[in-house]
Amino acid sequence: MRSQGTPPRNQRIPDAAVRRLPAYLRVLEELQRERVAVVSSTELSARTGFSPEQIRKDLAYFGAFGTRGVGYETEALARRIRRILGLHGTIHAALVGAGNLGTALARYTLSRHEDVRIVAIFDVDPAKVGKGIQGVAISPMDQLIPVCRRLGVKIGIIAVPASEAQAVASALAEAGVEAILNFSPVKIHVSDPVYVQNIDLTMELQSLAYHTSVGGYPGPLDGESP
Amino acid sequence: MRSQGTPPRNQRIPDAAVRRLPAYLRVLEELQRERVAVVSSTELSARTGFSPEQIRKDLAYFGAFGTRGVGYETEALARRIRRILGLHGTIHAALVGAGNLGTALARYTLSRHEDVRIVAIFDVDPAKVGKGIQGVAISPMDQLIPVCRRLGVKIGIIAVPASEAQAVASALAEAGVEAILNFSPVKIHVSDPVYVQNIDLTMELQSLAYHTSVGGYPGPLDGESP
Repeated sequence: MRSQGTPPRNQRIPDAAVRRLPAYLRVLEELQRERVAVVSSTELSARTGFSPEQIRKDLAYFGAFGTRGVGYETEALARRIRRILGLHGTIHAALVGAGNLGTALARYTLSRHEDVRIVAIFDVDPAKVGKGIQGVAISPMDQLIPVCRRLGVKIGIIAVPASEAQAVASALAEAGVEAILNFSPVKIHVSDPVYVQNIDLTMELQSLAYHTSVGGYPGPLDGESP
Repeated sequence: MRSQGTPPRNQRIPDAAVRRLPAYLRVLEELQRERVAVVSSTELSARTGFSPEQIRKDLAYFGAFGTRGVGYETEALARRIRRILGLHGTIHAALVGAGNLGTALARYTLSRHEDVRIVAIFDVDPAKVGKGIQGVAISPMDQLIPVCRRLGVKIGIIAVPASEAQAVASALAEAGVEAILNFSPVKIHVSDPVYVQNIDLTMELQSLAYHTSVGGYPGPLDGESP
């Protein structure tokens, strides 16, 4: 369901572990609000759904080993994860495509988070240009490169139809964007330092079918009749 | 970014491999349309972005080893993957929440795919009830259980606000749904045989930050000053 068109910029931590870090961070922030100073991997497991072994392994990648029999200091670990993820400041993101999916993404992220912040939205539809979502104005597509450069946008979100995705990706790369979240169902090509993460919602549904009563049947092996 | 609240129904193939199968299937279907009868893991790698080693390992889980120096038969492999995923027939899905995200999901999947098919949509808003998305009617929430039972819905998609997610999940489980795709940013609890896959779009953005120039810094180790 997801693939990387380019190798990750930072190879130290496996990609799958990086993708779990935000889940750990969310729980650690919850714990801080609850004034819990120390947390065990068992407790983190109960709150995230990942196994304690998985959690200990993931956190060990960046040198957070906790204290045996006690656990991890919530505040220090949250700070460390924010630093690893690059969330110690605000990162600027641009959303391209203000259709249903783009609007949902913008509303959702703008109402909740400050660390990755959508600072610019672009759409081809002249009727949408000038309007805004949660206070962020929608700009025309020909403003993409200058606006992204001016605002120091590092993350691009592609929520346009498949036919437009490659052109948008190329423009984002030209504007200096370093990582792209691509919701269009096509593989996009960008020059090597730009990291691409694809989310294909249809494929998410397909892989879910495996976990129903009709999935999981291995079928006949090669060479056998079907 | 994603976690499983419950263990998978079918343990034979690792979850990460299952999530890659739809990407392989898509490429195999492309190859069939191009009348390519045999494909190597190298070619599959070029088209999916996963390494040839990863692909060989994933496919070996269900006994598809290909022919050494030649490759995999595209048609047989596509059929096998469809069977494993449970996509040899049509699986019925229900979408709960017809806001921006739900509408995007419905339009997108209904315009493209037949194997996992949204057959029912539910929303609390009386103004939306009776209308439809791509020909599928939006029903009121109190119809969720009877309609899902009647239509044999196996997959539920939760695209409602966080505060409503648990009630919707419980209703879906009661209606006999076997797997849930949860887009709300809360952990939902359902009884054990129901599989839950969470997609949290905010966390996807956070993990993307790691791959920008501000991410990837491991920071001071435990015991050092910050």
